[in-house]
Parts: sequence; structure tokens; C-alpha cells
Amino acid sequence: MADPRTLRLNAADNVLIAIDTVPQGAALPGGITAARTVPRGHKIASAPIPAGAPVRKFGQVIAFAGEDIAPGEWVHEHNVMLKDFERDYAFASEARPLETLLPGETPATFEGFRRADGRAGTRNYIGILSSVNCSATVADFVADEVARSGILADYPNIDGVVPFTHGTGCGMGSKGEEFDILARTQWGYASHPNFAAVLVIGLGCEVFQIPRLKEAYGITEGDHFQSIVIQESGGTRKSVARGVDKIKDMLAFANAARRETVAASELSLALQCGGSDGYSGLTANPALGAAVDMLVRQGGTAILSETPEIYGAEHLLTRRAESEDVGRKIVDLIEWWRAYAARAGGELNNNPSPGNKAGGLTTILEKSLGAVAKGGTSTLRGVYRYAERIDRKGFVYMDTPGYDPVAATGQVAGGANVLCFTTGRGSAYGCKPTPSIKLATNTDLYRRMEDDMDINCGDVLDGVSIEEKGREIFQTVLEVASGTKSKSELLGYGRNEFVPWQIGAVM
Amino acid sequence: MADPRTLRLNAADNVLIAIDTVPQGAALPGGITAARTVPRGHKIASAPIPAGAPVRKFGQVIAFAGEDIAPGEWVHEHNVMLKDFERDYAFASEARPLETLLPGETPATFEGFRRADGRAGTRNYIGILSSVNCSATVADFVADEVARSGILADYPNIDGVVPFTHGTGCGMGSKGEEFDILARTQWGYASHPNFAAVLVIGLGCEVFQIPRLKEAYGITEGDHFQSIVIQESGGTRKSVARGVDKIKDMLAFANAARRETVAASELSLALQCGGSDGYSGLTANPALGAAVDMLVRQGGTAILSETPEIYGAEHLLTRRAESEDVGRKIVDLIEWWRAYAARAGGELNNNPSPGNKAGGLTTILEKSLGAVAKGGTSTLRGVYRYAERIDRKGFVYMDTPGYDPVAATGQVAGGANVLCFTTGRGSAYGCKPTPSIKLATNTDLYRRMEDDMDINCGDVLDGVSIEEKGREIFQTVLEVASGTKSKSELLGYGRNEFVPWQIGAVM
Ligand SMILES: [Ca+2]
Ligand SMILES: [Ca+2]
Ligand SMILES: [Ca+2]
Ligand SMILES: [Ca+2]
Ligand SMILES: [Ca+2]
Repeated sequence: MADPRTLRLNAADNVLIAIDTVPQGAALPGGITAARTVPRGHKIASAPIPAGAPVRKFGQVIAFAGEDIAPGEWVHEHNVMLKDFERDYAFASEARPLETLLPGETPATFEGFRRADGRAGTRNYIGILSSVNCSATVADFVADEVARSGILADYPNIDGVVPFTHGTGCGMGSKGEEFDILARTQWGYASHPNFAAVLVIGLGCEVFQIPRLKEAYGITEGDHFQSIVIQESGGTRKSVARGVDKIKDMLAFANAARRETVAASELSLALQCGGSDGYSGLTANPALGAAVDMLVRQGGTAILSETPEIYGAEHLLTRRAESEDVGRKIVDLIEWWRAYAARAGGELNNNPSPGNKAGGLTTILEKSLGAVAKGGTSTLRGVYRYAERIDRKGFVYMDTPGYDPVAATGQVAGGANVLCFTTGRGSAYGCKPTPSIKLATNTDLYRRMEDDMDINCGDVLDGVSIEEKGREIFQTVLEVASGTKSKSELLGYGRNEFVPWQIGAVM
Repeated sequence: MADPRTLRLNAADNVLIAIDTVPQGAALPGGITAARTVPRGHKIASAPIPAGAPVRKFGQVIAFAGEDIAPGEWVHEHNVMLKDFERDYAFASEARPLETLLPGETPATFEGFRRADGRAGTRNYIGILSSVNCSATVADFVADEVARSGILADYPNIDGVVPFTHGTGCGMGSKGEEFDILARTQWGYASHPNFAAVLVIGLGCEVFQIPRLKEAYGITEGDHFQSIVIQESGGTRKSVARGVDKIKDMLAFANAARRETVAASELSLALQCGGSDGYSGLTANPALGAAVDMLVRQGGTAILSETPEIYGAEHLLTRRAESEDVGRKIVDLIEWWRAYAARAGGELNNNPSPGNKAGGLTTILEKSLGAVAKGGTSTLRGVYRYAERIDRKGFVYMDTPGYDPVAATGQVAGGANVLCFTTGRGSAYGCKPTPSIKLATNTDLYRRMEDDMDINCGDVLDGVSIEEKGREIFQTVLEVASGTKSKSELLGYGRNEFVPWQIGAVM
């Protein structure tokens, strides 16, 4: 019988993960012998772990040994403890100097669009934003009319004219967090480097006023930004005609954009996970984390989000924070979410369930790490509010809900110009203007939904190393950033997935 | 100089409204002489109002005379009071027997689609619902593919195959009001008489599970209801192909539907108002109210909604309630909204502003009546939760936010098969599957947005009586219900305006 498969998630780990059931006495990598039968998904010590020493998985502390644990021993509830770890944020205690390329290493590049503000785009769209649901249909009609006219055939450097409609923009307060979030989101899209230009369409009497947006962000109308108000234009037909005219006026300017070689440090990678399964934390998420570490060493940016899904692992992020200041922002977010959930009559609870424990997840840290693992291991350089412009390089955090389209909308508004989305159950997500790359956590899903999945991370269970998979992801990110279409782009996704966070009451 | 124009809003009123400034000594209808100069928009007594007697506008009590008021006198803050009216719900005190046709009056009818459950449709669509944002794009693709195939040309009795996408369905609790609202909304659409059949498309791992919907409402798959789950179908392309197949299988059945003569009592009219102006309460809203009174006498149903906009006029609805039980539900709603707004950090406040008072609005009742006026004067027969199936005839109330697309989505889910929408600023709203008729409050708007507006109520200021305008609206409702396309239908609205109420936190 072949040796049972095991998985080492990170070079710094002192545990292996059993992919198959490991029988007592089985030979394991590193000359270790299984001290007893260990169920699949569970942990086996790969080195001596003295009592009180950290148990490391994903390169991060998930617990402490409750007794001396010998190599080959099963590591689970019976022999670990969390001590005061959960109450100790140990701010910045594991921060590292800025990660950089090794001497002699060639900087990675991609072919991108350099924009006037210095940022780099990976796509060259014209966007049609709507201030409110009441102008959504006109936004759609303008895009449809432009497409129907066939005129885009004469402007081959433009990736498309895309409407971004949504359900909000009125029936809300004219000040406060709800309004501010929508303003940041709209401005984040309006100024996104993947747009050559945007047209914003409003109704006129909505709460979310275009003139207020322009004033707040110092926007002047010109080549990059135009707006239309339906009530001022004389209704639907005239607004559509005006909109089409304005788009036509943008085409020459937008088509003049050319791809040029740009350093990978200009990439801003949004990290997403939806429809996760038992493999997410073993394959796709740590492999994406390895790619993130590579991108960060190149000077690029990676954005972890989805606060309800990292709940319980905040202590890991505070330790990895660059400073106490940065770490405190994570703690503040967690506190905010606790109150938000309570106000909504629910609670945040990420504790491992009995089913989780039977599957091998010992602590809340370990469970949340399944999600955090896609953020790699580098130092946390900044913490951002939903849809806030990301202005730091390296690994950063943006507060968002866990709900995929809402989370990704915030990250794209923050400037993400490429997105990696891990899924175990099989998400059908796609995004514009930012290309989304979908990573299957298991081979079965990859085969079942091959039209939707870009990368199979299931082969990690068959012996492909996390490091190797990370390189494949990183390479795909560079290719997609350079113009290769992702699966969801080939399918045509992205008109429905703009969903700004509605944080408050709809009135 | 011509006599200054005035307006009598209801036969039971004891005030006239000055459309132009009324100079002292001017001759007014009914042989009255203006006792002093009255500004435009303000009220003039048209009959003696003894101290303590009600001042009636829109046929309803807006205040009480603070002193004896003679015909021709200005009626405003200086000579009226609210006494304990605002604290006295006087449940059912103004309820009337069931309104019916007068002897010899011909029952009104329309040409509608009689459905298997006995209800009548005004359109014959096939709907494509999505359980979650993650299946929205597949829903769109199925509809687009069917349209592109040209096959609908062979099925002329089908009005269209329409996708209804939205931003929610996950990132929410799996029980509680948020979930229940979405379930009621989806079921309300799935079972709406304006659909011959519906296809529901889900992703698979979302919180809003199609099997739960089916179980909750006892749905079995068949001619009227089919579903697809993307994760089970093998991804986007296969799901689109399966969806197109399922739609094609529905075409013959759907095309077999025929219009037949149906009593107007089968109409369920949603009342909406958005982008209101100073004329809303004088022209379009009372004219719509007159049409509602006609519909109610025919045995039909009219649904008033938008609780934040009727705030302050709840005492009028409790008086008109059929019973204390029905009236108490209105009071409960108001209390719920007060708490909801407070929880969201805001407050409901509909008090007349100094500007409102200068414009002639004396009390909070009078201001909110501008909105309530579109509900006519008949007895309130029922109070419903958002998206709840309306099962009473007559004038009823459904709790919704004031935000138009969200409010209308609830009413349509409740079964509304025709919708009247008054607007002063100029809304661009349109709806599917329920045709929406737009009523302009002023002639200027009607001319400026003539492609969007169905009826001009601005001519009420030029001498067309409210009663006459009400008849025109009622007639248009019958025609549109019978298949005549409204302006927003001609423009093609309705793919963006399905916006279920997100009552809670997005997680
Ligand atoms: Ca949208
Ligand atoms: Ca998620
Ligand atoms: Ca997500
Ligand atoms: Ca929609
Ligand atoms: Ca409204």
C-alpha cells in the first residue's frame, strides 16, 4: 500500500496535515512514523513541540502544546491549549522588515495601462455609473445602444462600455456612514485605473447627488469624467441619446491608451473566498497566500477582507501588524462588527463546530486561518475602511462583509486591479472592471465547472507543493493583468456584480 | 383681471386651495368673497367653520377651527388647532359600510389573463428569478439567449422573458425578518398572476436556498415553476443551456394564455409617489385618490404604502380603519419604524418645515395627507407586511420603505397587477411584470418628460376637476390592464427595478 498522503502548508510549520487517514505506524515525510491512527484533515507533529511552545500551521500560531508532543503524534484538542493567546494582541510582535526581492532576482512585470494619476490599469474600459437605482435603466440603455451601434469595432483598444447599476442611492440618510460608503465606492470606481473614462448618470431628486460627489472629491468634468441628470435632460430617451453622444466623445481618448511594461509593484490584488469547503484552507487559500508573498516581495499590494470570516483570527493579524497603530485598527473593526451584528439581532461566531473539530480544526484561530491563509505571511501594512483608496504597498486589510459581491466591490473601489477568488463549492462570480481569477480548491470542482474555474488547486493534494502552486497563481496573475482573459471574462460576467455595501436601514 | 384660480380637492371639504394669490375682495366659487389676501397654496374657508369643528381638506380632518371661521377667511396656524386629535386614534370612527356600485351603474371590466389559482393577470410574462446575486448573471444570460434566438416571435401571446436580479440572497442570516422578507418577495413574484411561468436560478451554497422556498410555500416543479442550481448543473455555460431549454419548454404553455373579460374587482392597484413636489398633494395625488375610490366601489383593491412618508397622518388611517384591530396594525407599524430609524441612528420627522408653512401646509396631518391623498377616502380594510400576499378587497395598506423601487417591489410581490406612480420632479421608474402608469403633478414636467409621463395631472390647476381627472386615471388603468403599453413599458423599463427590501445588516 502506498504511503498515506500528507501536506506541509508552510516551511515554518511543525505539523503535517493528513490528506488520507494515516494508519498507526505509517511512514511519513522526514522519517517520521505515525504514533497512532490519525483521521484525514487532522494534524500530526512533524517536529518535537515542547509543552507551551506554539503549534504552527500556515506558518502561524494556531495553539500551544499542552504537553510535550513528539514527532508523529496526533495534535488536537487533547494535547493543545490557547492559554492567554486569545486575549493578547501582542501588537507588531511578529512584524518583519519590508519584504524585498533577493539579490539577483529579476523584477516581475506585466503589460498595463499607465494612467494620468500614475496608477496602472489592467483593463481599458469605459464605465457608466448610476447614482441611484432610478437611473439604472438609462445606464443600461446607453451601454446597450453603444454596443448595438457597432461603433466599438473601430476602437479596438477599448475593452468595453460597461454599466454599473445598483439598488441604492435614495431612501437613505444624506449624511452618515451609509452615504459615505456609497460615495467612496462610486468615487473609487469613477477614478479606477481600469477605466479610461466614466459617465455618471443620475435622476435628479435622489439623495445621492452627483454635484456632492464632484465637490467631495474635487472632480471636474473632462475627458475622464462626464455626467448626465435625467430630470434635466428631459427624460429617458433624451438622456440615452445624450449619454450615447458623451460616450462617443470619449472613444478616441480611451482608444489612445496603450499597454506598456509596468513593474508588478503596480498590481493591487484583491483576495476573495466564497463557497469555501474543507479543502479551502489546505489547497487554494495557502497557495494563494504563497502567491501573495511573492507579489509583496515584488513591491505589490494584496488586500485581505471579509471581516466576519476572519473573526477569531484577529490576534494573528495584530501580531503581524507593522505597528500597534495598525494592529489596533483590526481590533477596532472586530469590536465594530460585534456591535453591528448585535444591533442586527445576530452574533458573530466563528468557533469550530463539532463537525469542524471532527474534520481536524482544533481552534477558532485555525478555522479563521483557513480564510486568512490567502493573505500569506508578510507584515500587515495598513487597515482600510470599506471602499477606501488603498495607498500603501504590501499586505493590507480592508474591512468588508463576507458576502462576495459586496466584499469585492469594496476592494475594487479601493483600487484593486486584479482579483483572485478561491472557491470549493463553485462560485460563478465575475467582475468588471477588474479581472477575476477563480481558484478551485479541489479537482472535482475544477472538472465539474471547468468553464468557470481558472486554476485547479486540488492537485496540491496530489503532491504539487504550495510553493509551486503559488508560483502558478502568481504567473497567471501577471498574464491576466497583461490582458489574457480570465474564464469569467470570457463568459461575460461583470454587469451584475457591482453591489455597494448597504450598511444601514433602507427608509 | 380674471378671477384668481382656486381648487376644491374633495366635495366634503370646507376649504378651497388658492392656486394663484387671492387678493382681498376677490370673488371665489360659491359666491364667496376673499376676506383678505391669501398666498398661493394656502387655504380659504368655503363654508362657516364653527370653533372646534373640523377643517376638512382631501375630505379628511387636517385640524380644528380655533375660533369661528367665516367663509372667505384665510385658514392657517393663527385660527386652527389640533387639540387632542393627534393623540386620539379614534379607531374605526370614520369607517363606512363597504363601498359598492350605485344601482344601475355598469360594472367596469378589463381584458385580463385568468390564472389557475383564480387570480387575474394584466400581462403574460415568463420570469427568471435569481435566489442570490451570485446567480444574477446566469439569469441575465438565459433571458438574453432566449431573446437572441428569435424564438419568441413564434409565441406572440408572451410579453417577454424577463430576468429579476438583485444584490442580496447571501451574507445574511438564515432566519429572521431579513430572510422572511426575501422569501415573501420571491414567492410573491414566483406566484404573480402576470407570470405564466417562472424559472428560479440559484448558485447552490447561498443562504437563500431554493429548496427552502419550495418547502415553505408548498411549491412543486411543473408547468409554472422550474429551478436550476448552477453548482449542480456544472457551471455557467451548462446552466445557461439548461435554463434556455427549460424556458423553451414553457413557451407553448405560456403562449396558450388568452385575454378574457374580467371584472375590475380583480385589479390590485399599487400606489406610488416619488420625486414629489408642491403640486403632488394638489393635483396627481388627490386625482389618483379619486380613481382609487372608483376602483374600490368596483370591488377592486388599492394598496397604499411608504410608511416613512405617511408618518404623522396615521391618525387618519386609524379613523378610516374598518376595525380597531386593523387600525392598531397601523399604530404598530409607526412604532416599529420609529425604533428602526432610531436603531439606524436617524429619526422619522415629517413636521411641516417653515418653508412648508409658508407654502400653505398648516399641520403634520396636512403634509402627510399629500401622500395619503392618493389612497382616496374609503375605509381601510387591511394592513399587510412588506411583500405579503394581499387577500382583502378594497383600500389596504402595505408597510414598505419610502424608496420607490423597494416599495413597489413589495407591492408587486403582494399581487399588484397595475401600478400608478405620481411624480413632480420626474421619476424614470418602470416595472415588470406589473405595468406602471406615471402621473405628472404639473404640466411643465409632463411636457419636459413626455416620453416618460402617461398622464398630465397639471391641468387640475387649469380647471379640470379632481373627479374628472380621477375618471381619466381610472380609464387609463383599465386600458393599460387590458394590454395597452404604458410609457415605461414602451421604453423597456423593468429589468433593474426589482429591489427587495434589505432590512438588516449585510454580513
Ligand atoms: Ca447591478
Ligand atoms: Ca466570502
Ligand atoms: Ca468573498
Ligand atoms: Ca436587478
Ligand atoms: Ca416614494
